[in-house]
Amino acid sequence: MKVYFVSDGTAITAEVFGSAILSFFDIPIEMQSVPFVNTNDQANGLKRQINLEVANGNAPLVFYTISDILIREIIQSCDAHCYNVFGDLLLPIEKALGVKALPTAQKAHGMKAGVYDARIEAINYALANDDGASIKNFDQADIILLGVSRSGKTPTSLYLAMQYSIKAANYPITEDDFSAPGLPKVLRPYKKKLFGLTIDPDRLHEIRTGRMASSKYASPRQCRYELEEVESLYRQERIPFLNSTRLSVEEISAKVMAEMHLVRHRQ
Amino acid sequence: MKVYFVSDGTAITAEVFGSAILSFFDIPIEMQSVPFVNTNDQANGLKRQINLEVANGNAPLVFYTISDILIREIIQSCDAHCYNVFGDLLLPIEKALGVKALPTAQKAHGMKAGVYDARIEAINYALANDDGASIKNFDQADIILLGVSRSGKTPTSLYLAMQYSIKAANYPITEDDFSAPGLPKVLRPYKKKLFGLTIDPDRLHEIRTGRMASSKYASPRQCRYELEEVESLYRQERIPFLNSTRLSVEEISAKVMAEMHLVRHRQ
Repeated sequence: MKVYFVSDGTAITAEVFGSAILSFFDIPIEMQSVPFVNTNDQANGLKRQINLEVANGNAPLVFYTISDILIREIIQSCDAHCYNVFGDLLLPIEKALGVKALPTAQKAHGMKAGVYDARIEAINYALANDDGASIKNFDQADIILLGVSRSGKTPTSLYLAMQYSIKAANYPITEDDFSAPGLPKVLRPYKKKLFGLTIDPDRLHEIRTGRMASSKYASPRQCRYELEEVESLYRQERIPFLNSTRLSVEEISAKVMAEMHLVRHRQ
Repeated sequence: MKVYFVSDGTAITAEVFGSAILSFFDIPIEMQSVPFVNTNDQANGLKRQINLEVANGNAPLVFYTISDILIREIIQSCDAHCYNVFGDLLLPIEKALGVKALPTAQKAHGMKAGVYDARIEAINYALANDDGASIKNFDQADIILLGVSRSGKTPTSLYLAMQYSIKAANYPITEDDFSAPGLPKVLRPYKKKLFGLTIDPDRLHEIRTGRMASSKYASPRQCRYELEEVESLYRQERIPFLNSTRLSVEEISAKVMAEMHLVRHRQ
């Protein structure tokens, strides 16, 4: 089933909402985003295209977020099933707040002063402090992710920066770290910021094989050994940790935020 | 105004939807996400907390996405204004599709096989090909972003990877590139993949000053010079480009996707 996400902005809200509500249904979907629909002409062009698909027997679903009433009416008048993402909730919220909704285009994913700088700073921080690159900046970290190579540290750090403007450093635990007892020295002053990732040995073997097939690094034995050691380190040092095997980056990040009581720097 | 985003999953859908709909109102909001509410106990604990805030005269708004009927009813029965994000649209969509919604928890931001690997691969690609790091991989790129230092290439590459699983390389245009006419040699075979970023000179000066105050690099004169040159290069070579000054990473990415006719690798 083809699904259109139509918006006068980025269409991200329509995408997120539409894919979430469609995840309740066991049907394959083909997503097509149409962002920045800001003129009647653009809306009418899209309407013709959608009506043609309906006429050809391929009626799509349409989710939209559009502020301008005229443009909204053009989309709503397509022959397909069209859903206004905010449709039925704007009025009750107006009532609850005792404030009228602004008639101008809202910009849910537009640039917000201050917030934006915090976010870019967090992204730069994550990049500069990826893979233990710059341990001297750990005092600025909101969180330091630990884990063996390929257990999900880097994508998680970047997502925490992008979504929550959280400064996440990450530090790879390697075989060398297991020879001495306790935490690597550089981490000891930051114990409260540490959060561990682990992963199932089979999955780690699979991922590492994709990078470096038939290496000692990717061998089931090495993966098992490193994971046993790192989990025992987490337990001994009472570092909170989670297994990333069946989790998306979004889920890992949301769990880390909740467990570490981190507060987003974006509002 | 305090706003809760409550979910049995990551709460990302509730966050995105709730902040988007609240962007219609000119009120400051304080966002609090409560992800992974999966038991009656958790829901009742949250209900007590919310009711206490209401009793103290600070009634929050609550947006929620929860599949389990009992847990949903506990949240819905809080004394605050509570909004079921999917509330009124599930039934019409069931009708349109002729399919019943699944009773089990939907996982809008859970892990999807295949998709996940494409995404991690795209993130790794963006990191490995950041800042012209590895021009030998340009043939694998879905897109190559150009721009002078600090014009927004890196955050955009990472967002394209994270959100759309698009492999975005980026290549910094420096003063050296202006001495010879035309495109830098390494880019010439990939002309169709090129997309340029530019930015207002004042904003570039501000950003670069944050990195390296009072340097030639950050001087208004240098910023102006580089931007004039790079824009003239884009025009001469007919490379599509946009000005990132007043755009969020989401907006830049959505515009790049649309203009370059890129198709997401995530469904």
